Amino acid sequence: IETKLPKVGTTIFTVMSQLALQHDAVNLGQGFPDFDGPQSLRDALAAAMNSGKNQYAPMTGVPKLREQIAVKTERLYGRKVNADAEVTVTSGATEAIFAAIAAVVRPGDEVIVLDPCYDCYEPAIDLVGGRAVHVPLTLPDFSVDWQRVKDAITARTRVIMINSPHNPSGAVLSSADLDTLAALTRDTEILVISDEVYEHIVFDGAPHESVLRHPELAERSFVVSSFGKTYHCTGWKVGYCVAPRALSAEFRKVHQYLTFCTFSPAQWAFAQVLESDPQHYLDLPAFYQAKRDRFRELLAPSKFQLLPVRGAYFQLVDYSAISDKDDLNFCEWLVREAGVAAIPVSAFYETAPDAKIVRFCFAKNDPTLVAAAERLVKL
Amino acid sequence: IETKLPKVGTTIFTVMSQLALQHDAVNLGQGFPDFDGPQSLRDALAAAMNSGKNQYAPMTGVPKLREQIAVKTERLYGRKVNADAEVTVTSGATEAIFAAIAAVVRPGDEVIVLDPCYDCYEPAIDLVGGRAVHVPLTLPDFSVDWQRVKDAITARTRVIMINSPHNPSGAVLSSADLDTLAALTRDTEILVISDEVYEHIVFDGAPHESVLRHPELAERSFVVSSFGKTYHCTGWKVGYCVAPRALSAEFRKVHQYLTFCTFSPAQWAFAQVLESDPQHYLDLPAFYQAKRDRFRELLAPSKFQLLPVRGAYFQLVDYSAISDKDDLNFCEWLVREAGVAAIPVSAFYETAPDAKIVRFCFAKNDPTLVAAAERLVKL
Ligand SMILES: CSCCC(=O)C(=O)O
Ligand SMILES: CSCCC(=O)C(=O)O
Repeated sequence: IETKLPKVGTTIFTVMSQLALQHDAVNLGQGFPDFDGPQSLRDALAAAMNSGKNQYAPMTGVPKLREQIAVKTERLYGRKVNADAEVTVTSGATEAIFAAIAAVVRPGDEVIVLDPCYDCYEPAIDLVGGRAVHVPLTLPDFSVDWQRVKDAITARTRVIMINSPHNPSGAVLSSADLDTLAALTRDTEILVISDEVYEHIVFDGAPHESVLRHPELAERSFVVSSFGKTYHCTGWKVGYCVAPRALSAEFRKVHQYLTFCTFSPAQWAFAQVLESDPQHYLDLPAFYQAKRDRFRELLAPSKFQLLPVRGAYFQLVDYSAISDKDDLNFCEWLVREAGVAAIPVSAFYETAPDAKIVRFCFAKNDPTLVAAAERLVKL
Repeated sequence: IETKLPKVGTTIFTVMSQLALQHDAVNLGQGFPDFDGPQSLRDALAAAMNSGKNQYAPMTGVPKLREQIAVKTERLYGRKVNADAEVTVTSGATEAIFAAIAAVVRPGDEVIVLDPCYDCYEPAIDLVGGRAVHVPLTLPDFSVDWQRVKDAITARTRVIMINSPHNPSGAVLSSADLDTLAALTRDTEILVISDEVYEHIVFDGAPHESVLRHPELAERSFVVSSFGKTYHCTGWKVGYCVAPRALSAEFRKVHQYLTFCTFSPAQWAFAQVLESDPQHYLDLPAFYQAKRDRFRELLAPSKFQLLPVRGAYFQLVDYSAISDKDDLNFCEWLVREAGVAAIPVSAFYETAPDAKIVRFCFAKNDPTLVAAAERLVKL
């Protein structure tokens, strides 16, 4: 059988997690916390499950959860959204991104993606017959060169994908970035898919510049988020998409046939904690900023050069003072020889630049960060 | 925005469930039980969730669950499958069906579907650029006319989709059917997607003729099942696909980017109940057969003519002695005037035959069946 996805292998996240296990390494590769979210969340799930909430949720999501998402969206971003028509719950942000792409990209359409980017964008584009057009972010700060984006736009451009806070770099878009994107797409057929799964993890007092704050841009955007990052439960796979009515209608046509609906007890649980404890997500920036600062302090004596981190829970490091291997080889060596798993940044690129950068996840308890750093400072 | 899926509206299942709510009707429409599965399942989920199983599961599924699926497959169907390479856990059977189609159907390929069929097949085919070729089952017993299938095969045929026990009719395929399908597809490039979500609900002592029992056919098939029907938790959305190594590899490339992985605590829970209580699924035929027989007995005094039911949990009825409305109008009338929700069988057809048939779900507690029947016998 000839493959339809010749570029796709096992994701680097799986590969590195398996190597970490095999070599008993500290796993700072795949992005997931090594601690749990609030007990109240698990209790709410158990309560839902033990009170008969075990049959199909509505295809669009449990109404109370959609309402709470709308409440949060208005509180944080000042945008009133219609919970019935504009919010759809999905089986993780991955499903939401696939559904948004499949809903609007036609054979021959082009989708502009900014490299480095998360590895699920391009296969989704390929499977519906579209073509990813890669525009690199500008090093060293992973900023968007909007002139390059503009130059990449053609009559076939259907979607521009953005991601802020950015995985893997932690860069964040500014309101000026959103203004520029709005201007670039004004009076065109171009839509935006905005991956904001780290929306609640922005540091140094900066606000998250959600597309939902930008009234013009929001009118032509699918904004995707997820509860996995916010509630420290990446394995729960509950995400959502906020989009204007007409876009949501198309989104739902696809979602309806991708998964139909999402594990219902978790939907009830998220609805409850969003309502009873909004402080949880308001405290998240400080929570992760402390981890970021701690990890940077631990790595300060090492030969790694630490890149700035403005959001999300990843630390990029330049290892050129340690090795001249390429980043994949360096990661393989690192997990084997130093006992720490990382992710090579080239995995997020179509054409990787000649940089020696790998990514560590710092969403870890202190002893994990200490154990990793002990090994890393020795190099 | 111009739609990519002009044929898709809100599914009839959602429409009828909403009407049922609105008219305070007994909901025998959308297929879901009004009772829960074993408490041990919910306890196992709570235990998994409270012991830190809340981060990403492996993309292919929790190993222990894949092993238990392999154990069940060998016990029931005599087929040894490799849990690592041939079993993939998905976010419901819907995701598995989408992934299987997307993995192998290319633009211009044809997929033969047997009408009536579940409504998620065709949109998945459309979204990847394929074309559904509809072959009707033969009334009154919804059997496959293999000559018609043979006549529908062309050089572009890539997949034949089958479903047994069959939704909505409850028909089951025989081993002779599978032999014929094997002969038809021998030495061709045609693959089979076998939707067997009701595999444990087959009546009158008959075995479930899984494709997995058929060594030749299994080599070119994706076999899809789900725990939602078996454990009375349609809202938990855990399904799986069993396919030979090469097909599973392609399947996983798509699954990896559709949802990546599935709610992990439920995977641990299903692994545990499969291991500790296989009796649950062995008892399922008798459990649902009692409901079938009870519902038929309750409807015996009515003017509905009851079609035979050999599997799954749906009762088809011919209402031509009651009304000459078409089936959609009859269902709308029924939910409003009689207070019982049903599903029109035409919703499962590209081109519905001139039959007056609707579907009732009998996966309900006795009082629900009694309440519905009281209303239905009055007509
Ligand atoms: C789905 S595994 C990848 C997790 C993640 O978001 C990352 O590590 O970037
Ligand atoms: C996903 S809603 C449909 C449920 C079902 O399987 C049916 O009613 O046929």
